[in-house]
Amino acid sequence: MKSFIDIPPDSHFPIENLPYGIFSTCDNPRCRIGVAIGDMILDLSLISHLFTGPVLKAHQQVFQQVTLNAFMSLGRSAWKEARSTLQTLLSDDPTLRDDPSLRARALVPQSAAKMHLPAEIGDYTDFYSSIDHATNVGTMFRGKDNALMPNWRYLPVGYHGRASSVVVSGTPIRRPNGQTRPKDDEPPVFGPCRLMDFELEMAFFVGPGNKLGEPISVRDAHEHIFGMVLMNDWSARDIQKWEYVPLGPFLAKNLGTTISPWVVTMEALAPFVVENYVQDPQPFSYLKHEDQYNYDIKLEVGIRSDGSDHVGTVCCSNFRNMYWTMKQQLAHHTVTGCNICTGDLLASGTISGPSEDSFGSLLELSWRGSKTVDIGNGATRKFLQDGDEVIITGYCQGNGYKVGFGSCTGKLLPAHPLQ
Amino acid sequence: MKSFIDIPPDSHFPIENLPYGIFSTCDNPRCRIGVAIGDMILDLSLISHLFTGPVLKAHQQVFQQVTLNAFMSLGRSAWKEARSTLQTLLSDDPTLRDDPSLRARALVPQSAAKMHLPAEIGDYTDFYSSIDHATNVGTMFRGKDNALMPNWRYLPVGYHGRASSVVVSGTPIRRPNGQTRPKDDEPPVFGPCRLMDFELEMAFFVGPGNKLGEPISVRDAHEHIFGMVLMNDWSARDIQKWEYVPLGPFLAKNLGTTISPWVVTMEALAPFVVENYVQDPQPFSYLKHEDQYNYDIKLEVGIRSDGSDHVGTVCCSNFRNMYWTMKQQLAHHTVTGCNICTGDLLASGTISGPSEDSFGSLLELSWRGSKTVDIGNGATRKFLQDGDEVIITGYCQGNGYKVGFGSCTGKLLPAHPLQ
Repeated sequence: MKSFIDIPPDSHFPIENLPYGIFSTCDNPRCRIGVAIGDMILDLSLISHLFTGPVLKAHQQVFQQVTLNAFMSLGRSAWKEARSTLQTLLSDDPTLRDDPSLRARALVPQSAAKMHLPAEIGDYTDFYSSIDHATNVGTMFRGKDNALMPNWRYLPVGYHGRASSVVVSGTPIRRPNGQTRPKDDEPPVFGPCRLMDFELEMAFFVGPGNKLGEPISVRDAHEHIFGMVLMNDWSARDIQKWEYVPLGPFLAKNLGTTISPWVVTMEALAPFVVENYVQDPQPFSYLKHEDQYNYDIKLEVGIRSDGSDHVGTVCCSNFRNMYWTMKQQLAHHTVTGCNICTGDLLASGTISGPSEDSFGSLLELSWRGSKTVDIGNGATRKFLQDGDEVIITGYCQGNGYKVGFGSCTGKLLPAHPLQ
Repeated sequence: MKSFIDIPPDSHFPIENLPYGIFSTCDNPRCRIGVAIGDMILDLSLISHLFTGPVLKAHQQVFQQVTLNAFMSLGRSAWKEARSTLQTLLSDDPTLRDDPSLRARALVPQSAAKMHLPAEIGDYTDFYSSIDHATNVGTMFRGKDNALMPNWRYLPVGYHGRASSVVVSGTPIRRPNGQTRPKDDEPPVFGPCRLMDFELEMAFFVGPGNKLGEPISVRDAHEHIFGMVLMNDWSARDIQKWEYVPLGPFLAKNLGTTISPWVVTMEALAPFVVENYVQDPQPFSYLKHEDQYNYDIKLEVGIRSDGSDHVGTVCCSNFRNMYWTMKQQLAHHTVTGCNICTGDLLASGTISGPSEDSFGSLLELSWRGSKTVDIGNGATRKFLQDGDEVIITGYCQGNGYKVGFGSCTGKLLPAHPLQ
């Protein structure tokens, strides 16, 4: 498969990928749906009439919307048909290739586009599904023998996150003020968070939802999973430690959660499926599936300090480190009857691997601040400093091509002065 | 103040109240905004042209919407003006009173209306702000000496709930299947929840929101608080106990959360303001306010077993039992920069008082199942049985009138059979 559009050799967005996003431009500030191809964006709002397959012919208006929700709600047959149409249009079909006027209008350089959140997110859930991350954090706070809580291997532990503060890559994040208790035997204090951290995560968007009281079975789960993004779940560790008992993380996590703008579909990821993590004990039948639903997605986290042009890589991990699959997360989330809606976002939790350089947070990389993390040019970190930019990237390596996610970035602004 | 509409003496909806809700009727299934007055609903979509005050004149279209969000976003000057216009229209002004045709169209019996969720709820947060409830639960699980966690008196503990499963009064709730661990030294099991419970709560809707990174100060908090509803935070206690460490309640709470349909405004509640709970230690300055923001709202919970016509009262509590005020909750929620949006719902947590008959959940009333709770006609409960209907009511007692919330009801359906 080859596109008539020139694809740089290391591009994350060859014709095998075709991720969806929402963009606007200076001369047209309206949000619209685009597909990344090489360094360009194909503006679907200008070619919606070309989706003439049996499913999409009656639903061309979904490509005129300002979010992906309507398209995502149509389900897998529509998603497959759209992908097939786009691959035809972008390869050897003359409709777009040989129409210079349409090409000039419908193909926009990514460098000229502003990206927006891909969907209206009703609810956002964060899981805790990397066994290495859960073990690391448990070891630090409870010791090695009690690292994993008793429930951890029986169910994908998760919690409800804050949907309103999910922002698109590039949005600055402000260091929060909040309550912390620096010394366990003294009263808490109020002031700027001292232990700001990132969390390397990925998340998936839900397509069709379910009704309240009607669970999604693990067998049907794939039909509800549209595609994936990178995520940085910014975390204020000192605030978290003081506030989280007994109801879980709250303000420490709702100050901002960054996602990458391009949603990579499960169809594009299919060639990179790998064996599931071996689960012991065997999961309950409502969580059991035999088919592979784990993915080989190479992940990296870099930090660029303020004013520097050097990005220091601090973590190389892989999505395949996940213990629980996305199918299991979705089946678990709905087993008590919770209704999931189109556009809901379900995140992995921090994706750490077994080796020290694969830990997905500074909390783990600096082992609770007990050692420094090299970010290059002689600089080190235990936690984030004001002005630091955190850059998460991820891709699957194909045979001569990459299916990538682009990047998920955010810069940390200093806290507001206390009043 | 007297309305030309006949108000039954015990009505929750005299002219002093005027709560807003969303309703539809058999002959007009479109959702529209109404105001409860006595046993009737005034259909604002048919009288939007009568809002001719300086603020609302340019915003009459907010009364043509299918949710309250647009109206709530306008802020307090609009809310006050709307209340004033409505009180005029419903008392001695001839516009409505002397127009039989308009009255016939715009006044709908509540018995002929179907109520819907009053707002599109982006995010829902649940606090834990009754000191008696937190102490009771803490005593049961950790003993009397460690009942309150160290953070509890320093900040309003809360967590993110599930917005999608907030439903309007009358929606049946299905008993969930889920993982529980009946015996601490044995593996968990999967099956129907055995310990279904209600939680007596109230919640407030947010009007204007704030931007990410820009906290709402406790001084400004009132300007963001539109009005209140009753809430039943259905809880699967056995699922909760197994799942909630370390990230908080998840599936045990997202199977359904019921709210009453009528939003009672802070203007209607103003005469019932009472002294705040005495807080010790003094809160941090970002949480401190001197003005009263606690309310005398009498609350009752009744249970009606399947097929019975008797409602057994199991709890008589009062909103004034709250330790933290709604202003403090909102200031705390945003202090790290979290953005709150119009239509967001912030709940109190279970509202228990100091006496045994004021405990706001069966967990407390039956003291973890160690004793039975009388529901009348010789029937008792430790936790809810299939077919039980839980009925929460609440009102403020004025001088010769009530400002009430109506009721918040839901019937428990049996669990789906295991597959």
